[in-house]
Amino acid sequence: MQIIVLDAGTLDFDDSAWAALRELGNVQLYRSTATNTLAITQCIGEAEVVFTNKVPLSADVLQALPNLKFIGVLATGYNVVDMAAAARFGQTVCNVPTYGSATTAQHTVALILELCNQVGQHSASVHAGDWVRSELFAYWQQAPRELAAMTVGIIGFGTIGRRVAAALNMMGAKVLASARTERNPPDYDGFDWASNEMIFARADL
Amino acid sequence: MQIIVLDAGTLDFDDSAWAALRELGNVQLYRSTATNTLAITQCIGEAEVVFTNKVPLSADVLQALPNLKFIGVLATGYNVVDMAAAARFGQTVCNVPTYGSATTAQHTVALILELCNQVGQHSASVHAGDWVRSELFAYWQQAPRELAAMTVGIIGFGTIGRRVAAALNMMGAKVLASARTERNPPDYDGFDWASNEMIFARADL
Repeated sequence: MQIIVLDAGTLDFDDSAWAALRELGNVQLYRSTATNTLAITQCIGEAEVVFTNKVPLSADVLQALPNLKFIGVLATGYNVVDMAAAARFGQTVCNVPTYGSATTAQHTVALILELCNQVGQHSASVHAGDWVRSELFAYWQQAPRELAAMTVGIIGFGTIGRRVAAALNMMGAKVLASARTERNPPDYDGFDWASNEMIFARADL
Repeated sequence: MQIIVLDAGTLDFDDSAWAALRELGNVQLYRSTATNTLAITQCIGEAEVVFTNKVPLSADVLQALPNLKFIGVLATGYNVVDMAAAARFGQTVCNVPTYGSATTAQHTVALILELCNQVGQHSASVHAGDWVRSELFAYWQQAPRELAAMTVGIIGFGTIGRRVAAALNMMGAKVLASARTERNPPDYDGFDWASNEMIFARADL
C-alpha cells in the first residue's frame, strides 16, 4: 500500500513518529506540496492513502485520483477536503477530532493572562532595575486586571471551552456559556448558560 | 480616637477607600515612614490605633507607645510586628488573612504560563513579521511546554494553593500537594497527597 503525506513539514515530528504508519505500507513524506491541482495529483499519484494538514483536496484533485481510498486530515477542521466530492468518489475522510484539547486550553488561558498580567513586560522592567529603584516596593507598570472582577463568555462549550472556563473560574471569573445544546453544566459557582447576544452584552472577555 | 496609617503609599488607594475608617476617628495618613524607632514612635505619638503594611513595629517601638491599643497589619503576613511584645503590652494585632486569594492564584498561573508559552515574546515576533514570512505557517520560536505532560507540586494546600492547582489541573497537569493536615482532597483526576521530599523528587513545577 502506497501512503503519501503531503505536508509533513507542518508537523514538527522526528521520523520515529511515522513508524506506526510505516508498518502499514510504503510511506512517502513530502515536507510541503505546492497547492495547485497538478502538483497535488502528481505527489499522490497511484497512492491509495493520503494525509494532509493544510494542502487542499478539491473536487478536481479527487476526481483525478481513481486509486485513492482514504484521506487522513492531520487536523481537527476538515475544510481542506471537498467532502461532497470525496463521498461521490467513495473516498473515506478522517480527521483528528480531539487532539491537543488541554494544550489549546492552556494557550487560550496564556493569551488571556498576557493581557491581564503582562508578566513578560514586568520581568523586563524588573531586570532593568525598576524594582530596586522603586520607593515603596509596591510597584507595577500597569495594574493587573483581575479575573475575579470579570465575566468570561465562552461560545461553544465543548472540551476546550469547558477547560478554559474552569481554569478561569478557579481564578475567580464568572462564566457565561452558549452552546447549541445546554447539557452537563459544570458544578462550580458563578456559571450560567447564556445566548450569544447576552455574552456580547455582558462579558468582559 | 486617633488613627495613624504609617505607609498608605504602599496601597494604591484613592482617598475614598479610607472613608469607613474616618467614621471611627481622626485618621492621619503618612505616605511612608522611615523605619527607625524614633521616626515611627513620633508618627504614632499618642494614637490608640496604628495601621502598617511594611513598617516594622519592634518591641522598642511598642514599649514607647503606652496609648496604643490596636495594630492593624494591612497584609497577610504579620512578621513586621513583634507579637510577643504586643501581647506583653496588651496591644491587639490583626492581619488580613484572606485578601487577594483569587488575584494571587491568577498571578501565579500567569508566571507559570509565561514560562510555558511566552506569549509576549511570540507576540513581538509576529508583529516583527516572522509569521507572515514563515514557510508553512506552523511556527514558533520555542515549542510551548505542555502542562498536560507535567506534574505540579503545591506545598501548602490552602485557599491559594488549591486555586492554582485546580486551574493547572483544568489545563491537564497532575497535582501533588503537601499539607500539614491532609483534608478535603479536591475531586478532580490526577490529584495525590505527597511529602515535600516526594514533590521535590517528582514535580516538574
